[in-house]
Amino acid sequence: MAQLRIPGPTPCPPQVLEAMGRPMIDHRGPEFVKVMKRVTEKLKEAFITKNDLLILTGSGTGGLEAAVVNTLSPGDKVLSVSIGVFGDRFASIARKFGADVTSLTFEWGKPAEPEAIKQALKANPQIKAVMVTHNETSTGVTNDLAAISSVVKEAGKLLLVDSISGLGSIKCPIDEWRIDVAVASSQKGWMVPPGLTMLSVSEDAWKAYAAGKMPRSYWDLGEAKKYAERGQTPWTPAVSLFFAMDVALDTLLKEGMTTVINKHAKIARTCRAGVKSIGLSLFAQESHASDTVTAVTGPPDVDINQLRRIMREERGIVLGDGQQKLAGKVFRIAHMGWVTESEIKEVITEIAAILPRTRVAGAQ
Amino acid sequence: MAQLRIPGPTPCPPQVLEAMGRPMIDHRGPEFVKVMKRVTEKLKEAFITKNDLLILTGSGTGGLEAAVVNTLSPGDKVLSVSIGVFGDRFASIARKFGADVTSLTFEWGKPAEPEAIKQALKANPQIKAVMVTHNETSTGVTNDLAAISSVVKEAGKLLLVDSISGLGSIKCPIDEWRIDVAVASSQKGWMVPPGLTMLSVSEDAWKAYAAGKMPRSYWDLGEAKKYAERGQTPWTPAVSLFFAMDVALDTLLKEGMTTVINKHAKIARTCRAGVKSIGLSLFAQESHASDTVTAVTGPPDVDINQLRRIMREERGIVLGDGQQKLAGKVFRIAHMGWVTESEIKEVITEIAAILPRTRVAGAQ
Repeated sequence: MAQLRIPGPTPCPPQVLEAMGRPMIDHRGPEFVKVMKRVTEKLKEAFITKNDLLILTGSGTGGLEAAVVNTLSPGDKVLSVSIGVFGDRFASIARKFGADVTSLTFEWGKPAEPEAIKQALKANPQIKAVMVTHNETSTGVTNDLAAISSVVKEAGKLLLVDSISGLGSIKCPIDEWRIDVAVASSQKGWMVPPGLTMLSVSEDAWKAYAAGKMPRSYWDLGEAKKYAERGQTPWTPAVSLFFAMDVALDTLLKEGMTTVINKHAKIARTCRAGVKSIGLSLFAQESHASDTVTAVTGPPDVDINQLRRIMREERGIVLGDGQQKLAGKVFRIAHMGWVTESEIKEVITEIAAILPRTRVAGAQ
Repeated sequence: MAQLRIPGPTPCPPQVLEAMGRPMIDHRGPEFVKVMKRVTEKLKEAFITKNDLLILTGSGTGGLEAAVVNTLSPGDKVLSVSIGVFGDRFASIARKFGADVTSLTFEWGKPAEPEAIKQALKANPQIKAVMVTHNETSTGVTNDLAAISSVVKEAGKLLLVDSISGLGSIKCPIDEWRIDVAVASSQKGWMVPPGLTMLSVSEDAWKAYAAGKMPRSYWDLGEAKKYAERGQTPWTPAVSLFFAMDVALDTLLKEGMTTVINKHAKIARTCRAGVKSIGLSLFAQESHASDTVTAVTGPPDVDINQLRRIMREERGIVLGDGQQKLAGKVFRIAHMGWVTESEIKEVITEIAAILPRTRVAGAQ
């Protein structure tokens, strides 16, 4: 079987796949109520939060839309802090719903600078909310969210965070960092197939919800909260994914979130050292390199697309591609969720073995 | 194991559950492209359409939102034809996104009258689109969609159809009936767990899309179409459900959609005859009673909630509840998807056996 080293969907342990195959139950019956309440409580533990924790059926991108449409009104000024593809996507969603978005972008591969955010907020006092990516999957960079939060909260703004590829694998204590809405998604460190997005919602976010005027229906967090209180969802949920999440969270919480987070950090260090040891380079500034995904560049004569193809077809290892302007320029090794250090060492060994065949004659 | 007789999620055959438990693959890789293209083609065959067929990760209610936000602008006049809970929900979504909704409602248990729709369209010439439920799950009524379509298309309006509990089980030829957007959902007659919604989109609907001004991001059908052309989805799809849909569609198409539809009609007749034979009544007007779900009422002294509880706890048969104003007044027997006539006969036999214990002393 192929080794899936893309940044989601991630490999799922056998007990999670077994849960995916369970027969259906009544999503309005007592059995589902128990599953839903268990999953919600365990996610709150993993998020380290006392805020409301809501689970919606959809992709993480749906979760980002929920963060936007539940807290803002058309015309609201928001600051988008973007360091890559997913930061841009978050901003794009807000624009589509009529927010007045000020973009603060940083060079891809670099983290956001808290001081620049501070200045942007000072220069635009009418800004209501700041949207930021915790871990930028496209560049393999983790922002210093603790520092960013200090700046945002000092200015009294709402903090909306895409932690889709962070939460569950990289430290992100919701309450300590005063995150108003944090978005996660099942197919990342949670080791569950795609189809659920999970959001924490603070009291301040609920105040913004009450005032917010963007249209919301499917993604209405108020409806989700009302139903969640009785262990249900407003619309028919992806029952199988709730079963899988229930089992996966047991695995994660038994290991302990601190252990899980430290394990990710250790494996990521191994990955980065391995990449450098075979003559390739880290795309991300190493001080802020992600613990869930490593973006890799090569010397100019390495054909990245060919490297990915040979690895997939001959070695059974599926690497992530470069997105948008990074297409063909970087590849990505994901190490989130169900992954071991020896698997990552194997990936590095296999890349090293095929690397000579990816060199383009005549390239500089 | 319990027998699930609620109108979705429906029971899934073993080969579908097996597919749900398959390991993850790269949703941007060649294997997923094949799955996606196969599923799309097979769904077009089942929908009997040459229109675009798009598959989104989310509940059917998300599909209804997609039908609305991709074809309308805020302020657009639309006619909502409602015969129950789900017709009202469709209208409510349009209102939340700023449509100017004229409601044409019919007594619950009755179908919509095409002539009344014709008059409403004559009285409100500015109406742009008509929203209608094909099969109303809450009351167990199937509208005469062929006749409704004639009226709507004669008036030159866009026809948006919720066929979530119809398509795949009840006759609904998209092109013949000139349906502009039809919405289906995986957990109904398709025999797949919840989490996917499938929509057909006509050329006229695409014209409306181009002109439409409602905000759309996650549910953007234009984005979905662009990605579908290369066998992908804009956002990470619920991969497991695509696997399951692939397998379930093979089962359905091998049986043949006409056979599947006739089977549903036959089982529904058996169900209705059974209900009447044990002294209970059909809630729906029998001429338009649904072939996927039968809503049942009892004499006033039958405690419907107790009936459902005893059936679930003692007989392992889970029946649907009455929704909203029908709570405690009807229960529902679903017979869609993976169901046999003998199972429905068993349900009737078991209800008959426990019926005496559900009679409330002193009730009229």
